Amino acid sequence: MTQVRWDHDRESRTGVPEVVYGPGKTKAHLRQLFENEKGLRMASRLSDEQMDVLRDLATIYPEARMAVLNPRPKRNIPLVPVVTAGTADIPVALEAATTLEAMGVPVGTHFDVGVAGIHRLQSILPELTAARVCIVVAGMDGALAAVVAGLLRAPVIGVPTSVGTGVAQGGLVALNTMLASCSPGVAVVNIDNGFGAACLALKILGTERPD
Amino acid sequence: MTQVRWDHDRESRTGVPEVVYGPGKTKAHLRQLFENEKGLRMASRLSDEQMDVLRDLATIYPEARMAVLNPRPKRNIPLVPVVTAGTADIPVALEAATTLEAMGVPVGTHFDVGVAGIHRLQSILPELTAARVCIVVAGMDGALAAVVAGLLRAPVIGVPTSVGTGVAQGGLVALNTMLASCSPGVAVVNIDNGFGAACLALKILGTERPD
Amino acid sequence: MTQVRWDHDRESRTGVPEVVYGPGKTKAHLRQLFENEKGLRMASRLSDEQMDVLRDLATIYPEARMAVLNPRPKRNIPLVPVVTAGTADIPVALEAATTLEAMGVPVGTHFDVGVAGIHRLQSILPELTAARVCIVVAGMDGALAAVVAGLLRAPVIGVPTSVGTGVAQGGLVALNTMLASCSPGVAVVNIDNGFGAACLALKILGTERPD
Amino acid sequence: MTQVRWDHDRESRTGVPEVVYGPGKTKAHLRQLFENEKGLRMASRLSDEQMDVLRDLATIYPEARMAVLNPRPKRNIPLVPVVTAGTADIPVALEAATTLEAMGVPVGTHFDVGVAGIHRLQSILPELTAARVCIVVAGMDGALAAVVAGLLRAPVIGVPTSVGTGVAQGGLVALNTMLASCSPGVAVVNIDNGFGAACLALKILGTERPD
Amino acid sequence: MTQVRWDHDRESRTGVPEVVYGPGKTKAHLRQLFENEKGLRMASRLSDEQMDVLRDLATIYPEARMAVLNPRPKRNIPLVPVVTAGTADIPVALEAATTLEAMGVPVGTHFDVGVAGIHRLQSILPELTAARVCIVVAGMDGALAAVVAGLLRAPVIGVPTSVGTGVAQGGLVALNTMLASCSPGVAVVNIDNGFGAACLALKILGTERPD
Amino acid sequence: MTQVRWDHDRESRTGVPEVVYGPGKTKAHLRQLFENEKGLRMASRLSDEQMDVLRDLATIYPEARMAVLNPRPKRNIPLVPVVTAGTADIPVALEAATTLEAMGVPVGTHFDVGVAGIHRLQSILPELTAARVCIVVAGMDGALAAVVAGLLRAPVIGVPTSVGTGVAQGGLVALNTMLASCSPGVAVVNIDNGFGAACLALKILGTERPD
Amino acid sequence: MTQVRWDHDRESRTGVPEVVYGPGKTKAHLRQLFENEKGLRMASRLSDEQMDVLRDLATIYPEARMAVLNPRPKRNIPLVPVVTAGTADIPVALEAATTLEAMGVPVGTHFDVGVAGIHRLQSILPELTAARVCIVVAGMDGALAAVVAGLLRAPVIGVPTSVGTGVAQGGLVALNTMLASCSPGVAVVNIDNGFGAACLALKILGTERPD
Amino acid sequence: MTQVRWDHDRESRTGVPEVVYGPGKTKAHLRQLFENEKGLRMASRLSDEQMDVLRDLATIYPEARMAVLNPRPKRNIPLVPVVTAGTADIPVALEAATTLEAMGVPVGTHFDVGVAGIHRLQSILPELTAARVCIVVAGMDGALAAVVAGLLRAPVIGVPTSVGTGVAQGGLVALNTMLASCSPGVAVVNIDNGFGAACLALKILGTERPD
Repeated sequence: MTQVRWDHDRESRTGVPEVVYGPGKTKAHLRQLFENEKGLRMASRLSDEQMDVLRDLATIYPEARMAVLNPRPKRNIPLVPVVTAGTADIPVALEAATTLEAMGVPVGTHFDVGVAGIHRLQSILPELTAARVCIVVAGMDGALAAVVAGLLRAPVIGVPTSVGTGVAQGGLVALNTMLASCSPGVAVVNIDNGFGAACLALKILGTERPD
Repeated sequence: MTQVRWDHDRESRTGVPEVVYGPGKTKAHLRQLFENEKGLRMASRLSDEQMDVLRDLATIYPEARMAVLNPRPKRNIPLVPVVTAGTADIPVALEAATTLEAMGVPVGTHFDVGVAGIHRLQSILPELTAARVCIVVAGMDGALAAVVAGLLRAPVIGVPTSVGTGVAQGGLVALNTMLASCSPGVAVVNIDNGFGAACLALKILGTERPD
Repeated sequence: MTQVRWDHDRESRTGVPEVVYGPGKTKAHLRQLFENEKGLRMASRLSDEQMDVLRDLATIYPEARMAVLNPRPKRNIPLVPVVTAGTADIPVALEAATTLEAMGVPVGTHFDVGVAGIHRLQSILPELTAARVCIVVAGMDGALAAVVAGLLRAPVIGVPTSVGTGVAQGGLVALNTMLASCSPGVAVVNIDNGFGAACLALKILGTERPD
Repeated sequence: MTQVRWDHDRESRTGVPEVVYGPGKTKAHLRQLFENEKGLRMASRLSDEQMDVLRDLATIYPEARMAVLNPRPKRNIPLVPVVTAGTADIPVALEAATTLEAMGVPVGTHFDVGVAGIHRLQSILPELTAARVCIVVAGMDGALAAVVAGLLRAPVIGVPTSVGTGVAQGGLVALNTMLASCSPGVAVVNIDNGFGAACLALKILGTERPD
Repeated sequence: MTQVRWDHDRESRTGVPEVVYGPGKTKAHLRQLFENEKGLRMASRLSDEQMDVLRDLATIYPEARMAVLNPRPKRNIPLVPVVTAGTADIPVALEAATTLEAMGVPVGTHFDVGVAGIHRLQSILPELTAARVCIVVAGMDGALAAVVAGLLRAPVIGVPTSVGTGVAQGGLVALNTMLASCSPGVAVVNIDNGFGAACLALKILGTERPD
Repeated sequence: MTQVRWDHDRESRTGVPEVVYGPGKTKAHLRQLFENEKGLRMASRLSDEQMDVLRDLATIYPEARMAVLNPRPKRNIPLVPVVTAGTADIPVALEAATTLEAMGVPVGTHFDVGVAGIHRLQSILPELTAARVCIVVAGMDGALAAVVAGLLRAPVIGVPTSVGTGVAQGGLVALNTMLASCSPGVAVVNIDNGFGAACLALKILGTERPD
Repeated sequence: MTQVRWDHDRESRTGVPEVVYGPGKTKAHLRQLFENEKGLRMASRLSDEQMDVLRDLATIYPEARMAVLNPRPKRNIPLVPVVTAGTADIPVALEAATTLEAMGVPVGTHFDVGVAGIHRLQSILPELTAARVCIVVAGMDGALAAVVAGLLRAPVIGVPTSVGTGVAQGGLVALNTMLASCSPGVAVVNIDNGFGAACLALKILGTERPD
Repeated sequence: MTQVRWDHDRESRTGVPEVVYGPGKTKAHLRQLFENEKGLRMASRLSDEQMDVLRDLATIYPEARMAVLNPRPKRNIPLVPVVTAGTADIPVALEAATTLEAMGVPVGTHFDVGVAGIHRLQSILPELTAARVCIVVAGMDGALAAVVAGLLRAPVIGVPTSVGTGVAQGGLVALNTMLASCSPGVAVVNIDNGFGAACLALKILGTERPD
C-alpha cells in the first residue's frame, strides 16, 4: 500500500487534531489507525460497516457517524450551543458536537428551531447569549444563522447543510444565504462541514485559554 | 417605425393592465402613449430623462421610477403591507406600491425591518396579520420572506432584489432563499419585479371581489 | 432519539398545517406520528416501504406518495384546477391535489395539456376561468404557466418540475421560465413542490373566507 | 496592421457569405472592406459611428445595425416569417430579416405576438403554415418557439434574445426553454444570433433549390 | 389510472409523429400502446426490461434503445449522414438514425471521426457534401459540428451528448461549443436528443417534398 | 424622503456597530448622519465625491474608502495581523484594518505575501503566531488562507476578493478555495467583505474580554 | 457491432498513443484489443470486472485502474515527480504515473503533501527542482499547484481531482484555483485526467529528445 | 503609499520574470518601476494613458497593450508559433508573442485560421510541426486547440479568450472546450492569459537548454 505522510504535530501547531476521514479507507487501515493508539483518535463520515469494524476499539456515535478513542477530559467553560433549523440537519450538528466533546468542550444541542416558527428561539435565548461561540446548522433557506447572529455578542459559526429539495439541493442556497447575511460577523464553513465548524470553535475558544 | 400589436383586452381578460416598460422607448413614443389617453396608463423603469418627458402629462413617482395617468379610485379594503428588509430595496417596493395604488388598492409601507434585528417586526405585526395579502421585498440573504410567512395566515409574495455584494450580487441568493423557504406558501416572483408582485396581489385580492 | 420541537400552532397561526416529510423518517417514528392522532395528519414523499407501514393507519395515495388521516370535510367552493403539461408531471400535481383535498378543497385535475398542442387548453378553459386560483405543473420548458396566466383573472401558481432531459434536467429551466414569464402575476414555488403550491392556494382561498 | 486570412470561397463551399462583424473594426478598415467591392458585402452589429462611416458606400439599416452593399435579386419563393415575442426582440429579428433580404429571400415580419396573449398568433397562422422555414425570436421566457413549432410542418428556428430582467438577464432562460421545448424539431442558435438564424434558413431553403 | 390526452393529429399538423417516451411507463401501459396499433408506433429510451416486454410486438433496436412498429416505406432521397465524434456517442446517433429510418428516410452512419484526427473526415466528405441535411453527434469538446458545418452547403444539425469526464460531464460543454460555433448555420438541439434531431431533419427534408 | 428604522442598540446587542453603507446615499443624508454625532460613526464604500462631502466632519481613509468619526481608544491587546496575497487586495484589507482601528483594536498589515513566493511568509510568522485572530485577504486562487491556517493556533478569517481575471473574475474561485480549504478552521466571509471580517474579529476578541 | 475508425498513426503523429477507455467496453471487445497485440497497449478507468478479464493478457495496476501490455523500455532521464495533496488523489496520480512508466519514463511519487502542512514540501524539494517537468495532483482547494509552481524552473502540470465535499464536489474549485494561480506557468488539464497529464508530460519531454 | 514585497529572485527561482500588471497602477508608480531600471522590465494590460506615460522610457506595443524595457537577445531556437482562430483573439496572442520576444524567443504569428475553414491550417502545418511548443489562442467555440493538438508532436498551449457573444461571452465555453479536448495533451491556461501562456512556453523551452 502507498505510504502517506501523517502530519504528526498538527495539533500542537494549529490547535486542532487530524481526523481520520472515513470514505475510501479499508477496514484493515481503519483498525490499524485505532489499535494501540494512546492519544485521542477520531474518525468521521463512517459507513455502517466501518462503524462495525471499530466497535470494539472505540466509542461509536452512529448518528454522528463518528468513532472516538481517548477523548479529552471535559473543560470547565460555558456550553457551546449547537442549534439546527430542521431535523434533517441533526447528523451534521452531531458531527460538530461529538468533535467538540471529544476535545473536552461541553455542548448544548437544540434542534428544529427554524425561522418558520421564530418564537421557538425565545426559550433558548438565555443559553445562546451566555455562550462564547455558537454553531448554527441549517439547510434549505439557511436563514437561521442571520437571525441568531443578530441577537448575540458571541461569534456565530454557520454550517450550511445539503438538506433541501429543488433549488436548495446540495446546500448552495444555505451557504450563500449565510455568506450574504445582513447580520455582520457570521463565520461560514463548507457545506455539511460539522467537523470544520468544531475546529473553528476550538480555535476561537483557545485564544482565550492558551493551555 | 415598426408596428406593434397592443394587447387591448388584457385587463378584462386577466385582471391586470399592461404597463409601458420604459427601457428602449423613445421620447416621442412615450408621449404618444400618454397623450389623449382616457383610461389608466402606467409606465415603469423610467430614466430621469423619460420622467421629464412625461412630467406635464402624468403624475411622476421618481423613487418608483414610474408615471401614472388616471389612477383608479381607492377601494375600501384592508391595507396591503409592503415590507422591505433594507433601505436599498425601497425602489422595488415603491414600484409595487405605486402600481397597487394606481389600481385603487391602499398600501402600507414599512422599510428596513431586516432579520438582523428581528425585533423590528414586532411593531408592525398587527397590520401584517390584518392583511389579506402581504408583499415582502428583500435582497442580500432574502430571509425576511420566510420569517414573515411563518407568522401570517395571508399569502406572502416574496420579491427578491438585486441588492447585495459578493455572492449576493444580482439577487439569485435572495431568490433561491425565498423558493427554498422552510415556511410553506411563499409566492415568489422574478428579481426586482415589483410590478409583477403588484399584479399577483391584484389577482389574489380580485378573487374575493369580482367587480 | 433526539427530541424535536413540533410547531403545534402552525395551522392556527399561518393557515397551513405541518406535513410529515417522509425522507429519513424511521418506520417507528412514522407510526408514532399517526397512531392515536385525532386531528388531520398528512405525510409526503413516502417510499414504498413507508407507505406499507402506514397502510392500516391512514389512507394511502400511492401516485402522490402521501398518507392522509382525518381529512377535513369538503368546502363548498369552486374547483381548484390542477393542470399538468406532461404525464411525468402527474406525481407532483397529485401531491398538490391530495393536500388540497385533505384540507377540504375540491380539485379538478387535467393532465398532459402542454403547449406543443396548445388547442388542448380550449376544452378546459371554462373550468379554468371559473376558478379562484389555478395550479399549473410543468417541467421541460415550463411554458404552460405563462400561457395559462395570460388567459385568466385568477392567480396562477406555477410549480416547475424536475422532469426533463439535457438542459432541462433538475427543473431549473422550468423554474426560470415561470419566473421570467411575460404574463405578469404568476406565483412561483420551488421545484417539485406540490405541497407548497397547495399551501399557497389554501392561503389565497382563505383570505376570502376567514372561518 | 496585422494581416488576416479572408475565407474567400466560404459562400461557394457553405452557401452562406462571410459578414463583417462590426465590434473592434476601425473606420479605415470598414471603409476599405466596402470600397470598390463588386459583390455582396454585409456588416453587422455596427455602432452609430460605424454606420455613419459607411452611409455613402452602402445601404444602412439602423434598427438592424447593418450595412448592405449589392444585395442579391429577390428569389421567387414563399415568405420566410420572422416572428418576435416582444418589441425589444425587434433588433435581433431585423438582423435576421435584413440578412435574408440581402440574400434575395423575401421576409414577412410579425412583432409582439408573445404567449401572454396567445390569441395574437391566430391572425398570422395562414402565413406561418405556408412557409418553408420560420424564425421565432424571443427573450424573457422564450416560450413562443415551442408554441409555434407545435403548429407547423416547417422547421422552426428559435433565436433566444438577451432581453429580460432578473433571472432572464442575458438570455440563458430563453435559450434553455427553446432547447428543452416539448415540441420536437426546434433548431436553436446562439443568443441574439439573428445572422446565424438567417444563415441556417438559407441552408434549409437551399437544399430545395440547388441553383 | 389517470387519463391522458393523446395529441392524435400531431403528425398531420407538424410533420413529426409522437414517440412513446419510455422512462416511467409501466409494462402494461407500454404493451397497450403497441397492441392492435395499425399505424407507425415508436418508443424510445427503453430499459432492458421494457425492450423485453415489447419484443413480440415490435422490432427492437437494443443499441438505440427503441422499439418500432409499422415503419414507413423507404423514400427515394439522398442518404442523411449521421456522424459521431466518438464511440460513446453511438447510442444517441442510433436514436436519430432509427427514428429517421422508421419514417422512411435512408441514413448513412459514420462513427468515431473526431477532430483529434481530422484526416478521418476526408474519406466521408463526398457523402457529406451530397446530403440535403447532416446530423453531427458529439460529446466532450463538441468541436466536430463546427468543422463539418464549415465544409457543407447543407444544414448541419448538432446533437451534443452527455459523454465526457470532468468539465465535460453532462454535455453542457459540447452544447455550448455548438451554439458558439464560428461556422454559422449549425442547428442545435438538446443534449442527447437524437429523436429531436431526427424530427428536425424530417421537417427540413419535408419542406422540399410536400407529399 | 422615506423614513428608515435605525437599529439603535445593535452594538450593545451584538458587539458590532452599524456602518453607513455608502452606495446610494445622497450627500445631504451622509452629512446628516455625521453632523452632531457624539459617538463612533463609520461609513464605508464611499465614492470620491462622498469622501469630499465628509472631509470636514470626519477622518477620511481614501484607500479604505471609509470615513470615521470619534474612534474608540486603542485597547491593550496583541496586534491583529491583516495579510494580503497581492497588492490589488489592499483596499479590502484596509476596510478591515480601518474598522478594527476605529473600534480600538491594534492592527499589523502585511501586503503581497502570496503563495507564488511562499518564503515571504517566513519573516512575518512570529507576529502571526502571537496573534489571537488573523485576517487573510486574497483574490485570484485564494490559496493563502489555507497555508496560513495550517501554521497557526489562532482562528483565521478568510476574506476572498473579487481580484482576478478570467475564471477568477468576481471572487468565486477565491471564496470556494477558502471554503474547501484542506486546513480545517478557516472562517470565511463574503467576497470583498473587509467590514464583515473586522466584525467577526471583534466578536472573537470580545468573547475573551467582556468590557 | 458498429465498426469504428481506429486512429492508427496517432502516436507517430502526436507523440502519444491511444488508450483504451474502459467505461462501456464489453469484455469481448476488451480481450480482442489486447490479444495478439505486438506493440504497447494500455487501458484505463477499468472496473474490477474488466481488470479480471484482462488479468491473463496484461499487467494489471489495480489502484490506477489500468492494464498495460508491452511497456516501453525505461528511458535514461530524470525522474518525473508526481505529487498529491491528499491520499484520495492517489488513484488519479497513479493513472499518470502508470502511463508514464508504460512509455518508459521514470517516475517519483510523493503523496499527501498538501498545503495544510506546507513544511512537508521541504524534504522533496531537491527532487522537484531537478525535474524537467512535474505533475501536481490535488482536489479540495487545489492550492498545491500554485505553491509548487512558485518554487520550480520546470513546467508544472496541474491535475485537479474530483476529491472534496460541499463546494469542492466534482473538482471545479480545484480546477479554477489552478487556472487562477498567482504563479504563472501552470499547465492545467481536465479534472481527474491523469492520462492527459502524462501525455502532456510526454510531449514536453519529447521536445528535448526527438528520437 | 503602502509598501509591497517585490519577489526579487522570482526569475532565478522559476525561470519567468515578474510582469508589472497595469490595472490600478498610478502613473507615478509606473514611471518609478521603469526609470533607472537596468534589467528587463515588462508591463501588461496597459491603458492608453498608461502607455503614454511610459512612451519615453520603454518600447510600447499598443496592440499587445505592453511596454518592454531592455529585452533579452534573441535565442537561436525554432520559432514558437502563436496561432489564433479569429481576428478578435489577436490582442491576447500579441501579449503572448511580445512576452516571448522580450525574453529572446523567436515567434511566428498566424491569425484567423479558425475551424470554420479548416483548410487554412494546411499552409502553416510545416511551421507548426517544426516547433518545440505551440500556442493556440481561440475564443467562441475554442475548437482550434483540439484540431492542432491532434496534428503535432509538440505540446500545445491553449489560451481561451473572452471573445464571443451569447453563451460564449466571457470565454468559459472556449476554456471548457480546451479542457475537454478529445486530443490528449493540451496545456490550458486561464482565459485571456497570453502572459501565462508565454511563461509556460518559456518553462517548456527552458527544460531543454538550461543556460
